[in-house]
Amino acid sequence: MDFLKPETVLDLQNIRDELVRMEDTIIFNFIERAQFFTNGSIYEKDQFEIPQFHGSFLDWMLLNIEKTHSQARRYESPDQVPFFPNEILEPLLPSINYPKILASFADEVNINDLIKENYIEHIIPMVSARDGEQPENLGSCVTCDIDNLQALSRRIHFGKFVAEAKFINDREKYTQMILNKDIAGIEAAITNSAVEEKILQRLIEKGRAYGTDPTLRWSHEDGDNVPSKVKVEHLAKIYKDWVIPLTKKVEVDYLLRRLEDE
Amino acid sequence: MDFLKPETVLDLQNIRDELVRMEDTIIFNFIERAQFFTNGSIYEKDQFEIPQFHGSFLDWMLLNIEKTHSQARRYESPDQVPFFPNEILEPLLPSINYPKILASFADEVNINDLIKENYIEHIIPMVSARDGEQPENLGSCVTCDIDNLQALSRRIHFGKFVAEAKFINDREKYTQMILNKDIAGIEAAITNSAVEEKILQRLIEKGRAYGTDPTLRWSHEDGDNVPSKVKVEHLAKIYKDWVIPLTKKVEVDYLLRRLEDE
Repeated sequence: MDFLKPETVLDLQNIRDELVRMEDTIIFNFIERAQFFTNGSIYEKDQFEIPQFHGSFLDWMLLNIEKTHSQARRYESPDQVPFFPNEILEPLLPSINYPKILASFADEVNINDLIKENYIEHIIPMVSARDGEQPENLGSCVTCDIDNLQALSRRIHFGKFVAEAKFINDREKYTQMILNKDIAGIEAAITNSAVEEKILQRLIEKGRAYGTDPTLRWSHEDGDNVPSKVKVEHLAKIYKDWVIPLTKKVEVDYLLRRLEDE
Repeated sequence: MDFLKPETVLDLQNIRDELVRMEDTIIFNFIERAQFFTNGSIYEKDQFEIPQFHGSFLDWMLLNIEKTHSQARRYESPDQVPFFPNEILEPLLPSINYPKILASFADEVNINDLIKENYIEHIIPMVSARDGEQPENLGSCVTCDIDNLQALSRRIHFGKFVAEAKFINDREKYTQMILNKDIAGIEAAITNSAVEEKILQRLIEKGRAYGTDPTLRWSHEDGDNVPSKVKVEHLAKIYKDWVIPLTKKVEVDYLLRRLEDE
């Protein structure tokens, strides 16, 4: 996939390959986060006194990282979506001038607030080592959270490319459903239960492979049952309950507006 | 290991467990970097015009990330060593007041410049997908580089804890060698070839396990020979030629000054 060549980005097989590769990144990041407790204080508004800032420690850190990344032109790329779209900065590096791949309103399809809410409420408790506070690890922990949120955001907003590819592959069918505001029809058209089931199985296999030091077999009596650093059934649940439904929400949100661009 | 409890940090078994865990982080980061080409322009001084800054794009980005991380008190922690010690900022979060674990000069044992040089010159060519430039991926690539440099720096500077633990376990022997400036003797005393050989074997096993999508076996005829995303022999070489010798340099540098603190 090459964002300078739209036809490679709107190829459904290339999209699937990217989504499969992103699973690795997401699992690696979860494994890193699993070293730490829930550390709820990170996510509470004004829990720490930060001059000229109102929000959580996570928000403060994420905003500052996004400012730096935006100057490195991160958010010019069509697959990168900022959490603070109104506060990012102008790139310092020369612009890339990406060709048009998505509809002109695509940047407005941004569900990062919803992703962050669900991440804090549902995903953190499943991924953390256990409930509790570790004051000396808050910085390391929030750094993992930012990696996780950026990886999840990229994965979920990739739904825009899925939606665009499906739309141009069957313009007539989608146009009719969009005109009829047939959300249930659109959801049915973009759902492939067999593919979803395979994703969940793959996550369990990958979670086991990447989350277990393979050399523990050298010393462990019951080598095949060394527990993974991240609970593999939780990986599958996170995708089933949050990642896949949120990706579909992006697809539907995008498609419902798609005729604006015709 | 708990940095609020010095006796847990200076326990050699705990140190070894931490170093083994860090291998996972380092391998995950290398696998992420392996998605990109060498992208040499990132590392060349003034290759990009950045207002009020002279240096490489990597240096600009790393400095800005360190400024944000320092405000989250990253460099108060005794296991974190900044690349720009003179430019980091004061923490915004309340200080942790870590107990004294290392000698008072420990912060001055900082070989990050040397780590960065070796990373750019020797490690990047081994870890990258291939030689070449990808203008649209420079930001993603430099983000991986920063993760790699921070993880390598933490791993290598953990030599300070190894050195301190060995010193207090055999104060008499080390004091004599330090007084005699017997560098060869110190190097021999801190070297355990059998442990080093085991590290290299473990890296190869981990590189295979973490770098290979385990579900490719479902479709791949020759399932056990799916190539890893990162060349496992390069992982072992990076540790053998750079990570282990640089860790020993930290240990020797620290020990040679250790009597200043008596």
